[in-house]
Amino acid sequence: MNSEQKLEYINKHIGVYPDFPKKGILFRDIFGALTDATACQYLKDVLLEHVRKTNPDIDLIVGLESRGFLFNLMLAAELGVGCAPIRKKGKLPGECVSVEYTLEYGSDIFEMQKTAIKPGQKVLIIDDLLATGGSLSAAIELVRKAGGEVVQCLVVMELAFLDGRKKLDADIHSLLKY
Amino acid sequence: MNSEQKLEYINKHIGVYPDFPKKGILFRDIFGALTDATACQYLKDVLLEHVRKTNPDIDLIVGLESRGFLFNLMLAAELGVGCAPIRKKGKLPGECVSVEYTLEYGSDIFEMQKTAIKPGQKVLIIDDLLATGGSLSAAIELVRKAGGEVVQCLVVMELAFLDGRKKLDADIHSLLKY
Repeated sequence: MNSEQKLEYINKHIGVYPDFPKKGILFRDIFGALTDATACQYLKDVLLEHVRKTNPDIDLIVGLESRGFLFNLMLAAELGVGCAPIRKKGKLPGECVSVEYTLEYGSDIFEMQKTAIKPGQKVLIIDDLLATGGSLSAAIELVRKAGGEVVQCLVVMELAFLDGRKKLDADIHSLLKY
Repeated sequence: MNSEQKLEYINKHIGVYPDFPKKGILFRDIFGALTDATACQYLKDVLLEHVRKTNPDIDLIVGLESRGFLFNLMLAAELGVGCAPIRKKGKLPGECVSVEYTLEYGSDIFEMQKTAIKPGQKVLIIDDLLATGGSLSAAIELVRKAGGEVVQCLVVMELAFLDGRKKLDADIHSLLKY
């Protein structure tokens, strides 16, 4: 089975919930696919195939809390690199670098540990979803602030009609576009 | 290299932070190990070896938000099963089952989607840390309420001096004990 067919299979299993987390939003739920064993394997396959083909020389995979954590250790262990988290303020021990970003209802702060990235490391940022681009934009800024080079942001799903990609000053790849 | 040696290597790379998140707590940070590529591979190896040896017939891996997500998809994709999350109230779409649990400073609510577990499925619960046992105890109750059979709770680190294990009415395994 090729990548296109695997993605079609995954797409069929992703949950779709109208009006979540609030009225007017059609929420796409990656966890709906992950209860299916075949979808888990296919998702791993297509992510790995993509990274091996486009960026075989990355040094570190950075995942955004919390759904990005589903992928960062899985890919790191397979590719023979390390991984690191981006978390909300106050959750990581030790010295951190931080970036404030704007949300629909105010602002929030992302943090990374200062020891997470060695200067000049090639970083792949991973998350489940690209929507308006607010959190990925902050993640890119944070990785650069921590000394890393962002080689790509990889997401499973992109809500392309929101044009979040335009906000992002880095290479972006999504497996599934809506 | 055998499992003991791999665990020793991982242990050496785990971050240790006094007085985090508050005075008197010695925080052990799994992320400190994960920036190291070899530690990522060893951790995957020992987790997989353990599950294959003790519970090769599980149906689903349930990870606790957020650090449990590091392991649940990775193991599921490797073992040919599905995975599911336990999250704080309000973060999961669709109908959920919930369990309230007590924290040091009040209480919180864990949720699972009703569709996550098929009746009678054998579930492995995974997280990074067993401390006082409060969150794992709630996770066990939640998985049972959702119709699953808890075959084991697997954690990377156990703060054995806190005796959290006594609170847990299920089989518990930890890779590293302190």
